[in-house]
Amino acid sequence: MGIAIDRLREHLHGTRLLGSIQSTLYFDQNTLMPAAGSAWRGEQLALIARQLHGRQTSPAYAELVEQAAAEGAAELAADPRAERPAGWERNLSLLRQDLRRQRHQDPALVGALVEAQSRGYGLWQEARSRSDFSLFAPALEEMIRLRQEQARQLAVGESTDGGVERSCWETLAQPFEPEISKARLEVLFAPLRDQLPPLIERTLQRGLPQQDPPGEAVDLPEPVQQRLCQELLESWGFDGRIAALARSPHPFSSTLGPTDFRITTRIVPGSPYSAFLATAHEWGHSLYEQGLPRRADQWFAWPLGDATSMGVHESQSLFWECRVARSRAFSKRWHPRFHSALGANPWGSASSFWRALNPLRPGLNRVEADELTYCLHILLRYELELALLEEGLPVAELPGRWNRRTNELLGLTPANDAEGCLQDVHWSEGLFGYFPSYALGHLISAQLGETMEAELGPIEARIAAGEEPQLLEWLRRHVHPLGRSVDGGTLVEQVSGRPLEAAPFLDYLEAKVERLLAT
Amino acid sequence: MGIAIDRLREHLHGTRLLGSIQSTLYFDQNTLMPAAGSAWRGEQLALIARQLHGRQTSPAYAELVEQAAAEGAAELAADPRAERPAGWERNLSLLRQDLRRQRHQDPALVGALVEAQSRGYGLWQEARSRSDFSLFAPALEEMIRLRQEQARQLAVGESTDGGVERSCWETLAQPFEPEISKARLEVLFAPLRDQLPPLIERTLQRGLPQQDPPGEAVDLPEPVQQRLCQELLESWGFDGRIAALARSPHPFSSTLGPTDFRITTRIVPGSPYSAFLATAHEWGHSLYEQGLPRRADQWFAWPLGDATSMGVHESQSLFWECRVARSRAFSKRWHPRFHSALGANPWGSASSFWRALNPLRPGLNRVEADELTYCLHILLRYELELALLEEGLPVAELPGRWNRRTNELLGLTPANDAEGCLQDVHWSEGLFGYFPSYALGHLISAQLGETMEAELGPIEARIAAGEEPQLLEWLRRHVHPLGRSVDGGTLVEQVSGRPLEAAPFLDYLEAKVERLLAT
Repeated sequence: MGIAIDRLREHLHGTRLLGSIQSTLYFDQNTLMPAAGSAWRGEQLALIARQLHGRQTSPAYAELVEQAAAEGAAELAADPRAERPAGWERNLSLLRQDLRRQRHQDPALVGALVEAQSRGYGLWQEARSRSDFSLFAPALEEMIRLRQEQARQLAVGESTDGGVERSCWETLAQPFEPEISKARLEVLFAPLRDQLPPLIERTLQRGLPQQDPPGEAVDLPEPVQQRLCQELLESWGFDGRIAALARSPHPFSSTLGPTDFRITTRIVPGSPYSAFLATAHEWGHSLYEQGLPRRADQWFAWPLGDATSMGVHESQSLFWECRVARSRAFSKRWHPRFHSALGANPWGSASSFWRALNPLRPGLNRVEADELTYCLHILLRYELELALLEEGLPVAELPGRWNRRTNELLGLTPANDAEGCLQDVHWSEGLFGYFPSYALGHLISAQLGETMEAELGPIEARIAAGEEPQLLEWLRRHVHPLGRSVDGGTLVEQVSGRPLEAAPFLDYLEAKVERLLAT
Repeated sequence: MGIAIDRLREHLHGTRLLGSIQSTLYFDQNTLMPAAGSAWRGEQLALIARQLHGRQTSPAYAELVEQAAAEGAAELAADPRAERPAGWERNLSLLRQDLRRQRHQDPALVGALVEAQSRGYGLWQEARSRSDFSLFAPALEEMIRLRQEQARQLAVGESTDGGVERSCWETLAQPFEPEISKARLEVLFAPLRDQLPPLIERTLQRGLPQQDPPGEAVDLPEPVQQRLCQELLESWGFDGRIAALARSPHPFSSTLGPTDFRITTRIVPGSPYSAFLATAHEWGHSLYEQGLPRRADQWFAWPLGDATSMGVHESQSLFWECRVARSRAFSKRWHPRFHSALGANPWGSASSFWRALNPLRPGLNRVEADELTYCLHILLRYELELALLEEGLPVAELPGRWNRRTNELLGLTPANDAEGCLQDVHWSEGLFGYFPSYALGHLISAQLGETMEAELGPIEARIAAGEEPQLLEWLRRHVHPLGRSVDGGTLVEQVSGRPLEAAPFLDYLEAKVERLLAT
């Protein structure tokens, strides 16, 4: 490898160092920082963000990428049999893509967006606490305008550089799902839209939700929950030399260095399984990060070592949360542990404990939604994003549309905007294009699960035998090491042998509901 | 205020932001970071350190300081009655002093020192774990050589710029005690050297240490210790909106922003009061930081808002640990709380509890030393630093000299080097000139305590009435807001009306021992 390539690696290494300093500041902010530290922390973060932006957009950096590209090409021309690191071309193309995206944005627009996010977040908090959408509406209008402008600038950049043509929403979704299109989402989401509402109705008719399982509202004291979270992590390969568990108001996973993995959880009064399931979920994210091909010094700097999409990331967290921790076999194994940690057995049987972990009951809140209804919450948001960004839906009509579609999809109507279109933080920060990743995660988890079962036999049987390490081993072999060498869609196709579809998820869900009803 | 002064403030603000990012990385490293994160963290810290060094030594910055100085002088000349911020001249002189220190060092030497510190620390760990000084000796020799060279470079810089002439040790001690000299220390330390050993002997003869108070080795479970630490902080004005308590292997206090104060403590098996007393100690440091005149935006950037010396800093932590938390009145008030937190009373009486908090017993370890012997541990180290740096003591003779002097001062002889001259980390990192600050802290705490009692009446009476807030109020009025407007010596003189001396500390100690013996 030549001089320019080495210099490029050095540059990317420095960028990664700064990025991980930023992540450390965020991590501290969400775990130990007292509230009054936030203004100063904001200034620290802005300082690092300015440095990062400079590094990622400077003409010198752009030139370095092209020098490295030329150097690589020259080396190959001189000696076609020369050994070249796998993925070099892919790395180059990802670097150019990121650079193009960064450089085709007017700095004034970037600044305006940052300000609008901060203002929008404040107004959204106020509006939600008073359940008054009109307080937030002007900020949302402004944010939509700015994002539309941003998408236009990025699209011009793409077409100048011979890239792909994308709609406004598709352009904004790209950082989360680089290859996704509306057409593709329609193919994936239509079966959910068609089949989930009748499945929910059948479930309700058969009466499961009326029979609250004992133990759904059991009181698990904080130290008991902490101990169970710790036990869970230990049984799933947690290694305190490279990982740490902390507490934060909203659970998250964060990678602060090549061998420094953090997750957080939270104890929610009245939700005895929240901390445990959040731990399973975040640890799933972290296991993916730990399996990415970037431990070795050379890849931690390069894009190839990164996660490939939010959908794939989410598939890994959902696999461990829903497929494993909420499974029947797992409940059977862990019921005695919960019993022993609490020193009492309010659940009675392992079956009741399983049902307590899977309360199938449509609700208005996305975050608290069960597996059966979750994707409908996403469909609703996705439809509304398209309407707002591309179809001219007036912001003032959002609450009405939200409530009507909620009723059509879930059979429920929000009593107010706080329960309805003000419930999520995302839009206050202009985060459009993100929601579908959550649903894609469910679909990907199910389709990869089918392939896994074809090789390893039933996942439930493995869990019953306490063989989660084998499940992890499979993911470590087939999924995690791909990094960003392929996009999310290709990853699924490569691993499962066919393009992603909704059927495996719907099949899995139907079978699970059937078993829960029969329990 | 003019343009250059505003630009200078901006520059210092940016420097402070970077410095506080560095502190946040250290804080995380010592609290939540898993061990394997250390190499990457080291790279992050090195990146920030390079940036900080650049900002603090660049010719552009030096020029800015002089432009601001000229601007201030011109403004004064134009309008002698113009309102000038208090301390402007002092700020300028501190900035110039720091700049001189930074700029008169050969960057190659700075680099060599960083490397030698890292190597020295590793070898010291190895040597200590095998109790074999010879493994560490070459690294110590190299470190002494480098520090001597550094002191030479700094001294040349000082004399070129018309500064004060200092010996090698004095030059190295300057960052911790800017105005201290060997002559001054001799005046302060001679009474300790003369009077502490006979006081210890008298104490031993009267037999106190033979009667181990019940409860000295009581088992206080972790949650009990945690609750007591939290209660202590709450009774001393802890405000969770601006402060946080965490755990770390070595307790420390750190200020991460103008309103972001952190302290840590640790639970030591077999030392039931360690976490409680460390919390008191670190909170004392933090209270000083919280009282410094830098909350207001304008001073957080300027040197005037900083702590003035390590000795003064230590006086504040020792005041709260020794003067308050180890006092008889405090023991009386807290004995019932310990009893109730533990649900048992292994101490019997409040007097026994007090004695358990004050085990007067000479030992070989500085960190575990009591108030009676602590300063002798410092005298030993100070003498040996002078011998090594200025009097040509061969490094090979250090263990022998250490053991002989330990015996003379404390009547004890280390069985090996791990118990002896390898016990402290400081020299492995070339930290010479720091130890005396610990002893100065005891002296300053006692002298300020006398002045406080002259105004408020006996401290013990205040504590008995639960009036610690009044003690804090006094420190907040007389000590904390001085910041770096005066040096440590001047601070003591200004507050107490006379130069620092050893007598108040020795008087306090003699009285305390007398009461303990009579209990």
